[in-house]
Amino acid sequence: MMENDKIHEACGLFGIYMPEGKYEVDVASATYYALYALQHRGQASCGIVVNDDGVMTAHKDLGLVNDVFTESVMRKLGKGNIAMGHVLYGSGAFTRAEAQPLVANHVKGGLSVAHNGAITNASELREKLEMEGAIFHSTSDTEVIMYEITRCRLTAPSIEMAVSGAMEVLDGAYSLVIMSPSKLIGARDPHGFRPLCIGTLGDGFVLASESCALDSIGATFLRDVEPGEIIVIDQDGLRSITTHCGQKPSSLCVFEYVYFARPDSVIDGSSVHEARLRAGAYLALEHPVQADVVIGAPDSGLDAALGYARQSGIPYGIGFIKNKYIGRTFIQPTQTDRENKVRIKLNAISSTVKDKRVVLVDDSIVRGTTCAHTIRILREAGAKEVHMRVASAPYLYPCYYGTDVNSPDKLIAHGHTVEEIAEMIGVDTLGYLSPESIQRFVPGCKRGFCTACFDGKYPTSVPVCKEKSRYLTKKSEAKKS
Amino acid sequence: MMENDKIHEACGLFGIYMPEGKYEVDVASATYYALYALQHRGQASCGIVVNDDGVMTAHKDLGLVNDVFTESVMRKLGKGNIAMGHVLYGSGAFTRAEAQPLVANHVKGGLSVAHNGAITNASELREKLEMEGAIFHSTSDTEVIMYEITRCRLTAPSIEMAVSGAMEVLDGAYSLVIMSPSKLIGARDPHGFRPLCIGTLGDGFVLASESCALDSIGATFLRDVEPGEIIVIDQDGLRSITTHCGQKPSSLCVFEYVYFARPDSVIDGSSVHEARLRAGAYLALEHPVQADVVIGAPDSGLDAALGYARQSGIPYGIGFIKNKYIGRTFIQPTQTDRENKVRIKLNAISSTVKDKRVVLVDDSIVRGTTCAHTIRILREAGAKEVHMRVASAPYLYPCYYGTDVNSPDKLIAHGHTVEEIAEMIGVDTLGYLSPESIQRFVPGCKRGFCTACFDGKYPTSVPVCKEKSRYLTKKSEAKKS
Amino acid sequence: MMENDKIHEACGLFGIYMPEGKYEVDVASATYYALYALQHRGQASCGIVVNDDGVMTAHKDLGLVNDVFTESVMRKLGKGNIAMGHVLYGSGAFTRAEAQPLVANHVKGGLSVAHNGAITNASELREKLEMEGAIFHSTSDTEVIMYEITRCRLTAPSIEMAVSGAMEVLDGAYSLVIMSPSKLIGARDPHGFRPLCIGTLGDGFVLASESCALDSIGATFLRDVEPGEIIVIDQDGLRSITTHCGQKPSSLCVFEYVYFARPDSVIDGSSVHEARLRAGAYLALEHPVQADVVIGAPDSGLDAALGYARQSGIPYGIGFIKNKYIGRTFIQPTQTDRENKVRIKLNAISSTVKDKRVVLVDDSIVRGTTCAHTIRILREAGAKEVHMRVASAPYLYPCYYGTDVNSPDKLIAHGHTVEEIAEMIGVDTLGYLSPESIQRFVPGCKRGFCTACFDGKYPTSVPVCKEKSRYLTKKSEAKKS
Amino acid sequence: MMENDKIHEACGLFGIYMPEGKYEVDVASATYYALYALQHRGQASCGIVVNDDGVMTAHKDLGLVNDVFTESVMRKLGKGNIAMGHVLYGSGAFTRAEAQPLVANHVKGGLSVAHNGAITNASELREKLEMEGAIFHSTSDTEVIMYEITRCRLTAPSIEMAVSGAMEVLDGAYSLVIMSPSKLIGARDPHGFRPLCIGTLGDGFVLASESCALDSIGATFLRDVEPGEIIVIDQDGLRSITTHCGQKPSSLCVFEYVYFARPDSVIDGSSVHEARLRAGAYLALEHPVQADVVIGAPDSGLDAALGYARQSGIPYGIGFIKNKYIGRTFIQPTQTDRENKVRIKLNAISSTVKDKRVVLVDDSIVRGTTCAHTIRILREAGAKEVHMRVASAPYLYPCYYGTDVNSPDKLIAHGHTVEEIAEMIGVDTLGYLSPESIQRFVPGCKRGFCTACFDGKYPTSVPVCKEKSRYLTKKSEAKKS
Repeated sequence: MMENDKIHEACGLFGIYMPEGKYEVDVASATYYALYALQHRGQASCGIVVNDDGVMTAHKDLGLVNDVFTESVMRKLGKGNIAMGHVLYGSGAFTRAEAQPLVANHVKGGLSVAHNGAITNASELREKLEMEGAIFHSTSDTEVIMYEITRCRLTAPSIEMAVSGAMEVLDGAYSLVIMSPSKLIGARDPHGFRPLCIGTLGDGFVLASESCALDSIGATFLRDVEPGEIIVIDQDGLRSITTHCGQKPSSLCVFEYVYFARPDSVIDGSSVHEARLRAGAYLALEHPVQADVVIGAPDSGLDAALGYARQSGIPYGIGFIKNKYIGRTFIQPTQTDRENKVRIKLNAISSTVKDKRVVLVDDSIVRGTTCAHTIRILREAGAKEVHMRVASAPYLYPCYYGTDVNSPDKLIAHGHTVEEIAEMIGVDTLGYLSPESIQRFVPGCKRGFCTACFDGKYPTSVPVCKEKSRYLTKKSEAKKS
Repeated sequence: MMENDKIHEACGLFGIYMPEGKYEVDVASATYYALYALQHRGQASCGIVVNDDGVMTAHKDLGLVNDVFTESVMRKLGKGNIAMGHVLYGSGAFTRAEAQPLVANHVKGGLSVAHNGAITNASELREKLEMEGAIFHSTSDTEVIMYEITRCRLTAPSIEMAVSGAMEVLDGAYSLVIMSPSKLIGARDPHGFRPLCIGTLGDGFVLASESCALDSIGATFLRDVEPGEIIVIDQDGLRSITTHCGQKPSSLCVFEYVYFARPDSVIDGSSVHEARLRAGAYLALEHPVQADVVIGAPDSGLDAALGYARQSGIPYGIGFIKNKYIGRTFIQPTQTDRENKVRIKLNAISSTVKDKRVVLVDDSIVRGTTCAHTIRILREAGAKEVHMRVASAPYLYPCYYGTDVNSPDKLIAHGHTVEEIAEMIGVDTLGYLSPESIQRFVPGCKRGFCTACFDGKYPTSVPVCKEKSRYLTKKSEAKKS
Repeated sequence: MMENDKIHEACGLFGIYMPEGKYEVDVASATYYALYALQHRGQASCGIVVNDDGVMTAHKDLGLVNDVFTESVMRKLGKGNIAMGHVLYGSGAFTRAEAQPLVANHVKGGLSVAHNGAITNASELREKLEMEGAIFHSTSDTEVIMYEITRCRLTAPSIEMAVSGAMEVLDGAYSLVIMSPSKLIGARDPHGFRPLCIGTLGDGFVLASESCALDSIGATFLRDVEPGEIIVIDQDGLRSITTHCGQKPSSLCVFEYVYFARPDSVIDGSSVHEARLRAGAYLALEHPVQADVVIGAPDSGLDAALGYARQSGIPYGIGFIKNKYIGRTFIQPTQTDRENKVRIKLNAISSTVKDKRVVLVDDSIVRGTTCAHTIRILREAGAKEVHMRVASAPYLYPCYYGTDVNSPDKLIAHGHTVEEIAEMIGVDTLGYLSPESIQRFVPGCKRGFCTACFDGKYPTSVPVCKEKSRYLTKKSEAKKS
Repeated sequence: MMENDKIHEACGLFGIYMPEGKYEVDVASATYYALYALQHRGQASCGIVVNDDGVMTAHKDLGLVNDVFTESVMRKLGKGNIAMGHVLYGSGAFTRAEAQPLVANHVKGGLSVAHNGAITNASELREKLEMEGAIFHSTSDTEVIMYEITRCRLTAPSIEMAVSGAMEVLDGAYSLVIMSPSKLIGARDPHGFRPLCIGTLGDGFVLASESCALDSIGATFLRDVEPGEIIVIDQDGLRSITTHCGQKPSSLCVFEYVYFARPDSVIDGSSVHEARLRAGAYLALEHPVQADVVIGAPDSGLDAALGYARQSGIPYGIGFIKNKYIGRTFIQPTQTDRENKVRIKLNAISSTVKDKRVVLVDDSIVRGTTCAHTIRILREAGAKEVHMRVASAPYLYPCYYGTDVNSPDKLIAHGHTVEEIAEMIGVDTLGYLSPESIQRFVPGCKRGFCTACFDGKYPTSVPVCKEKSRYLTKKSEAKKS
């Protein structure tokens, strides 16, 4: 459905290391194109840091990659042999200080860190650091990670051993790309919640959240980073630290396949598009219906809809046209524009659905509001029946691993039966994918899954309170001095 | 295929008239949303004119609707009971002075004109006007139209009779929306080259190039404007002048169904999406092939690909992912970014095409360059065979009715056989829709078609020279005084 | 005083002609710097047209020269051997369509016109043209001038003779810079209301409203254009048409010396700074007072204040600091910011005025509002007495020659005695320069003056009505068709 | 002379505290206007932090106050009862991360710090902090100050005692404005290098670098903060901590009077304008000359020029016109624009200087380049003799207290006699103010002066090395891990 009824993940990561003097690649441009390919993972802010022989030049701002990085900004970033970048999703309260990669100077020189995920014990770590005199410029977990690495670096023999040391105390979900004056480092938490893969480009190496970023710059996929693994790339090539591997059961976020990742990416051994086709097929097996056409909610439900159609034998159709010229400054219609009848961003193709029994497939339902709007459009275009099929299980529990659903209150599945939800969103029948099918719809994946949002089984301990609220909203507590 | 290998039409039109004091519609906002729905017809410039009791306020600029019309600009446009707008496609030499609607003052007050099409005798009319002392601020045909209407208005009893008078001398393709201090007028040339339809909104009326603009604002489709008809809307309601109707054989541009119009529009009685599905079906009948999957070139080939798949029984697949965050300021990769391997705007879904015999469907081939690029991406993603099917006939002759193909030199089909083209773009087999099928793929359409671009049979006389070149490029002739 | 209590003139003009292939001057850059030097004559819009061998490229917009002309815009303007530019003052209703130079195509090719002044019979000429079928894109007199030149060009042997022909019918104030594909032309109305001078730059020539524009680009002053003279510059060099010279008594606007021109300019033989020093001296002779310090209202009263101080023997002081970082986007303080006590744009230097008897000199008083504000600031800073001296006569009559005072209603001197004005603005005494002194304060000037704003003696017939209002405000008349 | 030949100070500070629920002042707007009045102290970046009952909202960016703070930004800052702001000067390498006020969270809640000056032992303090695990996001001394306050806060009973504790270890020049959730704090180093004053506004208090900021918002001057004093403002009103007062000899920077401060400010008991008039008078006494006119270099030399003229009896004149429309985006003329003859930013008034013996007064000469350019303009305008008088002593030694002159290499007075300098800049005679006169030209000032830039007598120990270079430029050292 529409984007504001979706859950959102917090990041896309990228890093590139080219051996000096050997291969002529513009590392800043490569990072730009790669971030552009990862833009679906975060539209709130973006940043690039270029490392020219130890001197780091950074540019970060709120906005999309191609708004923030103009030609003059790219010129200022200049040349270098290592670079890294980040795209981030964030809500309204979000400010420029949260943009990543974080760049700071510590006793051993410059350090740049980008993070995808969420640290479940960030609040405790932060409090401990503050008690020792630390100051924080942002509310992001990334600053906590940076502090922990810096602390370890005081005694560790190298930056990679400092990262390994920090991983001893960090709990939760984190894929990391880190740059020191002379090294590019990638790391993935022992559960492997968030993806991270390695590619080669000429004599150099790249790290990226998804393989589609490798394709965008002509790099070749090498392998995924293993859960708990630390990858070190420097003038001696690539090497791996596996101390933390195998400590925990792997718990890859299943929503990477359901919604987050781009269909052309291959994650931990499985094609995302293929997984979605299979989710649609399982859905057809579990929730069959007599109907005339199967359509997907654009763009998130298209793959699963095709899988449903193939399995069921009901013709696949193109049900909607999405306006592709939507931009940042688009003026929203007001209530008085008679919301129910205007079809500005999305319109139904009447000839596909009129007088038809329609199966509408989407990947998930979170709050249900824009879902209801989409169904109303179908009804007004003449659909005789609407049967909704959802390519994931009911979303019931908050996620603490880097998505933006913190509270169950806003989840339509929380406290409502499937029948009640069907009535609320206005469909004739509604079917969700069963938890069992979720465990098997990704063919050939090397990992176990985290399905805590569906079943409440969290692979880690859960945060006691959300620390961000302390700094941003509680006025009564704010006055301490 | 990619947009720079497409032909482009020159315009989208919209007008709205609300009876004063009766219905509370913000005519400027309605025009904004309608232009946004018509944005696919022109991305170079846009403009809105609001008429508040005879006082016209205009804003026009280069750029997309949601870049040009910010909230502060909308506030400045203010309230009114009549409004009209325009979106325009244009090439590089295009400047702000060409943006429409044109607004001018003449002896009877203000006048605003927006035009979709091209006047084939514009050069002769312009020369005649200049010899009488006229000055021109732009190179657009629209200024010629405005002059002719103004001339007629000196003796005609009303603005609509002046429009009718001007139609006596204007040759070629034109759909027009015109606004006088108290009236909204629509007109379509006697051949009916370009579409124009009428809708109702409460007690008011709207005019639009396509019905998708009516849907976007919640208006109800009333009927199409007939070829040669003049529609007059004022405080007495809507009336029709049919003097020019039936004078010429109707010649609706077939490319409106092939590529220009949005699939959710209904034009002159036929659904655009339905027409494209049928074009795909005829293509399957004429050019069958043994294959494993049918995919469409996004977004223009998707409908016809589905039609081909249904008819042939070969599974429909999703073959490509298009990056949807592309924006105006995107920095293009250079040649040295090894163009052939980077997949920034378009990437193949490997699991769909790898080791498969692929049928690739697109609506047309013009120059063939980005088409070749798309096919190369398929090959690199592992496609075993690529069979291209094109849902229109070979494009052989220049168009003089409002599209941007002026010369046959750049048309790949000009001077090459189908086999040669297949080799140039790198496919195993290539099949075009036959001219006979083109005449019947639009079911239920009330009009005859102009297919001059395929067969060279022009419904009107053809311009002797392109007048624009005189003002913009010929230095030697420019020095006359 | 502050700028919103000033009258404003409508224009600054500039043109440059470099013989082809001889001298390496970037004509677009030269025009940019020259307009920047003439910016004080108009801040509402600006425009540059570059002529490259007959092909004219233009850029115009609302705003200051250094906002409108960015480096990328300058690149687009490109190279050429002729160029011209314009800066314009305008009120709120002003839109981009009014920006100059006007550029149009007519039967003999391209034509570009820039105008400083106002045509007193524009309304009649426009009505006549409209009756013949002309259409107007703006409300500016410049479009009328362009039409008249175009009409004459149909029969005249050259563009300069067409200009001469147009001057037969144009009444009022006009200095013109005109560019045809191969010529640069300057002209001044027979009364010579507005200035225009000629300079040389290498082998080329320039035309400018004021000599300060010549200094800004390193050009050498040659001479002023004579009232009624037409200057033609082309590949044969510079020549003069004097048909219209000497037909009317010369009537140079005295406000050019009082306020409009920059102090470092020399106009029609006299230094502007020198004239203002002398105005201050005459003022001291006519209105002596016992006081401790003479200060000028920044920046318009500084020169006359120094002249008053020298003549009177009372010490000259620096009484105010003006904030020089004021910009377009400055947020105005609201009434509730207690307007009387805030000193954001202007602050008094307390040590100069505290417990002193202060003579405050300014060039003129128009509405009197900001003048009263300035005096209040002085009082609050501790001035014991404030004696205001004004370096021009009471402004009593509207100006029809290109300034923005159309109605006497807003003039504080209209209907009030000097004593009443003194009380209204809060000074102890008030003295204006006598009309007699005004006739002689400009030493060595070759022209007679227009002093109609002081004495109501208009050198020409006066417009019956202001035509602009017809198009922009009268709703009742707007509905003619 | 022109600004790029000036030394620059690093800051303007402002803070405001309004008792809750008592007085209706918009603290964000007041800070905006105050920063606008302090803009001359720094044009590189600016920032405002608003404190709404403990919740701090900040906005900072590169650029001028009225570019950075648009109406929408001001709306986002919102309401509050405490606010503070900062303007900063910086060189090219400067980035947004250096913009102040710094805002961070530490164990006791939010903290915001703004700083004017430079910490001479910052390098040592930073190294010590890093060895304890601290990370730094910027190269600014302000982050060191913030860390030291945070460290002390771990054990101190209140934020003000933490500030007092930090002052034990901080050496060098610092005026500070600090905001905790419930308090506004001001502090000045024991030498009192940089100014800071207190005003009242209704029932509230303000802190500002200069009194002109108080005038701009209608506040009343209360008194200067004493060297070493800490001012605490909270719901109990204003109180003072004087522990550090009287520890060191007071050393107010004499350049505050010579150039930095605005002429309408009163600093530590003396009017800046009055001081400059007296500097000019002393200069006339020490370096008399037979001449026809005294002019000041705009705008920095105007006050001293008037003082010289009054004392010498030589007439004061207005010698230059500075273009007041200069903006950020102004395109600089190239060398090939024949630099010596173009007068874009500054032009001489020929009638003032032609054939005259001219005394040119400026406040100081640093590098001498634009000074030479100004003199060349005078010569070309016809000045017969040019006698330069400088209202300060030769600038010989680097400043370590917050100005941007770090190295003596670029100082024209370093290694050259007065006669040599006169020849280099092209004047007939040159006279500097003697060090003795500098000690007495500020009448009634309560402080001793720092004149280290003239005599090398530094009131504190001097930094061993500039730490900034370590992070930004030394590639060889950057690779530590």
